[in-house]
Amino acid sequence: MTDFPTIEDIRRAAERIKPHVHRTPVLRCAGLDRMTGCRLFFKAENFQKVGAFKFRGATNAVLSLTDEQVRHGVATHSSGNHAAALALAAARRGTRAYIVMPENTPEIKRKAVAGYGGRITFCQPSLRAREEGLEAVVRKTGAVFIHSSNDPRVIAGQGTAALELLEDVPDLDIVLAPVGGGGLMSGTALVVSAISPQTTLIGAEPKGADDAYRSLKAGHIIPAENPQTIADGLLTSLGSYTFPILRQHLERIVTVSETGIVQAMRHVWERMKIIIEPSAAVGLAAILAAEWGQAGKRVGVILSGGNVNLDQLPWMPE
Amino acid sequence: MTDFPTIEDIRRAAERIKPHVHRTPVLRCAGLDRMTGCRLFFKAENFQKVGAFKFRGATNAVLSLTDEQVRHGVATHSSGNHAAALALAAARRGTRAYIVMPENTPEIKRKAVAGYGGRITFCQPSLRAREEGLEAVVRKTGAVFIHSSNDPRVIAGQGTAALELLEDVPDLDIVLAPVGGGGLMSGTALVVSAISPQTTLIGAEPKGADDAYRSLKAGHIIPAENPQTIADGLLTSLGSYTFPILRQHLERIVTVSETGIVQAMRHVWERMKIIIEPSAAVGLAAILAAEWGQAGKRVGVILSGGNVNLDQLPWMPE
Repeated sequence: MTDFPTIEDIRRAAERIKPHVHRTPVLRCAGLDRMTGCRLFFKAENFQKVGAFKFRGATNAVLSLTDEQVRHGVATHSSGNHAAALALAAARRGTRAYIVMPENTPEIKRKAVAGYGGRITFCQPSLRAREEGLEAVVRKTGAVFIHSSNDPRVIAGQGTAALELLEDVPDLDIVLAPVGGGGLMSGTALVVSAISPQTTLIGAEPKGADDAYRSLKAGHIIPAENPQTIADGLLTSLGSYTFPILRQHLERIVTVSETGIVQAMRHVWERMKIIIEPSAAVGLAAILAAEWGQAGKRVGVILSGGNVNLDQLPWMPE
Repeated sequence: MTDFPTIEDIRRAAERIKPHVHRTPVLRCAGLDRMTGCRLFFKAENFQKVGAFKFRGATNAVLSLTDEQVRHGVATHSSGNHAAALALAAARRGTRAYIVMPENTPEIKRKAVAGYGGRITFCQPSLRAREEGLEAVVRKTGAVFIHSSNDPRVIAGQGTAALELLEDVPDLDIVLAPVGGGGLMSGTALVVSAISPQTTLIGAEPKGADDAYRSLKAGHIIPAENPQTIADGLLTSLGSYTFPILRQHLERIVTVSETGIVQAMRHVWERMKIIIEPSAAVGLAAILAAEWGQAGKRVGVILSGGNVNLDQLPWMPE
């Protein structure tokens, strides 16, 4: 599958993964509505299996493979939620997942991947070392590479979150999602533009990892160079699938400060009593950061995940 | 109203408070099911307004009063969720709430009460000083005293959580709730014994505040003396209403250690991605602490609240 994903691919993905994923709730919060002056509808993917929307894309990718293709397993390079998601999706299909992971990956994330049965190879912490490590693993095992975002099967899977959101709340003025590699935002954009074309699509990105913002402005992909942000799920650059999709459909990307991310995260914890990770807070941070047309609007916000190290919360002294 | 509350009072309370409270969800967690060997159904009162079930009882009490009775406001002594709940319930009714609060109450809790418009009087941190402070306030203002647990209107309101739980999950083998003053446990007991008499009722209590456990064993109320537990919502003793109700309906009380409470709380945060306070974790702690007949059973667990100081989590170094 090398074509760009379509709304039909996303509908098929939804059917395919339905028995395996949670249909996550859409949550409201009167306190945050008052604080923002919007009517907010939070799609709670922090309650998804593996604690993040990533399980949708990984499951769709693994289930899209034929028995023959899947025989030698799947592989990826990732230090985060995609690694854990792919490991569980592979285990569920009865095959292996090979994960290439930077050697400085926190222990809590290694354990999650290993706990789902993923086979970890460590590499130097650079994109080049990750890609070389992955190539070596694929050559040796014959596993199928599943990129964390720039893969049509992954994008189609991630789009199912927005599909559910629009089923539950059909009349949104704005839909807002975080942008890292752009897999979630691309799937969301394909769904919203097809089903609810009057809805405005907004991306949210940390200022310290604003490669997507700059790429859309420049009209070509500008890879992230040494991105610095607490939102560790948003470090990946756009790719050959995600960049054109975002370029076509996104109204704009709102960038947010590190302080804004931490404050938004804490507001959600305190007011909604749910645990979200920093990457999931950039959407609310974008609403709180500036006025860009959201006042009084019905805004869908995708809370991407809830995997945090509870021993090292961002408001704790180091 | 000085009669013991009945299931009919609870049904009336449910109608009365319906427009004012959240119908909280019942949550499942595959990971905790595996960990405990039970099928767990969590009634998520941490998502209730004010962040705790206490808003049910306070709202029912305030709405049960006539316009004449409510004219001079309501009053209570409490350092915790009941104080905030009563303040908001009174504000919603357009009247005043007078809260007598120990002077060592953490700032975060004072702010919550003040934020809902409660009028705070500080007193020495002893039960006697609280009761004397309350008496003085009532004498001066003519406000109606609403006890945090030993009040039939409060008990009836708290019972509505179990009513919703049984509507959503009718075939529970066990229902488990934390025991502090016994308001929640009493309301829960009245509902479960009336609607689902085959269901076993279990209370959970910290070992460091096990006055209810000892009271039921002795056959008379033994007040808590200098209770020591991180579960700061469970320090109150049983009273003239709650003791007889628990004595009649409770199968047993399971007591849990401080370590057990903190571990259970952390399991819920990590696995369910929701924020609960220590008092809400004693139910799961009781399931994890020992085998007392819960294996393989369908267990309803009331998560009582989610108000925690995020700067001082129990697993952080002081």
